[in-house]
Formats: sequence, C-alpha cells, structure tokens
Amino acid sequence: MDRLRKQIEFIVEIDKLKHVLRQSALIHDRRRENDAEHSWHLGVMAMLLAEYVREDSVDILKVMKMVLIHDLVEIDAGDTFAYDELGYEDKEERELQAAERIFSLLPSDQAGKMWELWQEFEEKQTPEARFAASLDRLQPLLLNYHTKGHTWKMPGVTSEKVYERMAVIRESTPELWEYVVQIVEDSIAKGYLNR
Amino acid sequence: MDRLRKQIEFIVEIDKLKHVLRQSALIHDRRRENDAEHSWHLGVMAMLLAEYVREDSVDILKVMKMVLIHDLVEIDAGDTFAYDELGYEDKEERELQAAERIFSLLPSDQAGKMWELWQEFEEKQTPEARFAASLDRLQPLLLNYHTKGHTWKMPGVTSEKVYERMAVIRESTPELWEYVVQIVEDSIAKGYLNR
Repeated sequence: MDRLRKQIEFIVEIDKLKHVLRQSALIHDRRRENDAEHSWHLGVMAMLLAEYVREDSVDILKVMKMVLIHDLVEIDAGDTFAYDELGYEDKEERELQAAERIFSLLPSDQAGKMWELWQEFEEKQTPEARFAASLDRLQPLLLNYHTKGHTWKMPGVTSEKVYERMAVIRESTPELWEYVVQIVEDSIAKGYLNR
Repeated sequence: MDRLRKQIEFIVEIDKLKHVLRQSALIHDRRRENDAEHSWHLGVMAMLLAEYVREDSVDILKVMKMVLIHDLVEIDAGDTFAYDELGYEDKEERELQAAERIFSLLPSDQAGKMWELWQEFEEKQTPEARFAASLDRLQPLLLNYHTKGHTWKMPGVTSEKVYERMAVIRESTPELWEYVVQIVEDSIAKGYLNR
C-alpha cells in the first residue's frame, strides 16, 4: 500500500495545477485559462493532429503523456508569460526546483519516468517533443485569434516575436505552419496583433 | 486545408468544456471543478495507475484518449450529477444528440473514431473502458475525501450509493478497490458521508 499511497499523494497534489493561471483567455467568457485546462486541450489536439507530423513515426502515447505533465512544475514555479523576457531569466532554475519537489512525491521509478518525459519536452530534440511543443504554441494562438488578440495586446508583443515563438511548428508540422501564417497575417490585418 | 479547417473548428468548439461545471469541488479553494480539469486529471491518473488493472493487458493509449474525450457530450448535455436519479432518466438521449452535433464537426474518419471511443467508454465492456470508468469514479472520491465530503453532503447521498457507484473499480482494479473501501469507511467515521 505504500506505493499506492505515494501515487495518490501525487494525484492529490497536482489538483493545484487547476489554480495556476495563464495569460490566455478562454474564447467564450474571456476568463483566464488555467494550466490543467490548457494541458487537457493539448491532449485532445495531439489525438487529432498527429497526421501532420513531418517525421516518419511519432509515438503518440508519449506525446499525450508529455502534454499532460509538461506544466506540472508550474504548481511551484508559476506560469511564465511567453513574452516575458525577465521572467525567462530564472525560469529554468525555478522549474528544476519544482520538478525535484513534485515528481519525488511519486515512487522512484515513476518519478524517474516523469523527469525523463519533462526533460525530453523541454529539450525539444525528439519528434515527440517537437510535436508537443508545436501544440503548446498552436493552442494559445487559437485562443488569441478567437479573443481578438487578448494576450497579444500586452506590452512588447509583436508579430515578429509571435513568429519566433511559433517556429517549432514549422519544423514539426509544416502544414500547420501554413495555417499559423494565415492566422497571424489575418490577425495583423484585423488589428489583433501589432506588426 | 478543408480537413484541417474542420479539425480546428472542433478544437475551438471544445474550449466550451472548460465552462461545464461539475458538482465536485477543488481541494484547495473549493470552487467547482469543470469537465476539462476533471478530464486532464483522469489522463494523468491513467498514466500512473495502469499497473493495477487486473486484466492481462490494457491499451493505455486508448484509455488516455477515452478519458480526455468522455465528457465532451456535456458541452451540450450538461453534467448530470452522479446521484441525480431524475437527471439520469434522459441522460442517454441528451448525450446522443450532443455527440451527433459535436463529433460531426470533425472529418468523418475522426468523427467515427470519436464515436467509437465514446461508445466503448459508455458501455464498459472492455478492460480499457472499465479502467477509464474506474478513474472517473476514483477522482471525485479523492476530491470528496479532501473536501470533507463536499458533494456527499447533498440530499440523498449515502455510503450505499457511493459503493454502488464505485463498483466498477472492484472489477477493474481490485487493489484500488481496497483503498476505496478504506477511504469510504474513514469518511463515514469522520462524518463526511452518511452510512
């Protein structure tokens, strides 16, 4: 029962992800999205959009696991806004400490697997990690487009920075990249995003 | 691009799942949980608890897909409280209509797969569906236990009905069932749940 007790303790702990607010606003009432909702959305997107991955084969189970756990470190480290350069300076250190505390609630074999998945996601060196990162970029783009550029109105955000942030989509899923370019250009034309 | 347009339309539509409120309350501030948060939680639980499934082999990818999409029909049909007998009378009809509208936003091959997954979940005839249903029962039990029986205080809820609701856990994952019995009995002893 000690193993199960640890697993349950972790499952209870991660309930806190539902309180970590992102900058993105939901489409229908513009309240801020939280990390659990965001991670769920990416999981369904992984199911539906895997056919666009350029690489020959992609382990979709691994991608789904990655997207569901990729933000757990934010329970302690908080969400760092994608265009907050200052926040990014100590993001890695804050998140490593968080991973150390949160993952180690699990039995050691599962803690190790969680670390590996999260590190793989962060490093973006595998087809799975690049696809997961692409979904993590595409989802807030959709929310922004459908809320007339809610977070794109924040200081310092330009189309150049948005394109830079989206670059992994071009590498991983070229057809989705074409769609992203359409959306970004349309957003500029409509005044949702500054050129 | 027509195929992708449909997929994106579906992905945008299901943002609404984040507004479907359940009866369960979150552990840390007791606001009501929504279906997207709940579905995300089940996805992570599927990753961690698959070792307890009694059957020889279980397709964990299928389980993860199932738990992420199992509540999509509630975008139209709303959440039916587990102990609301009146609500259950027309639940199936309301949910079938919802599935018809929502899944058919997708390209037909993916709409078909979504129907199959959801139907398999609802019918509980496969090891994957029973495990998914077990997680769907265990997660609100954990929330209830850690909020001193938040939804168990509602009219008509008794330990007998809770055990009945949890029965699929005994079939699918006997070791988790032992844990459930401990939690339910402790909850009765602590006054969180009426015997």
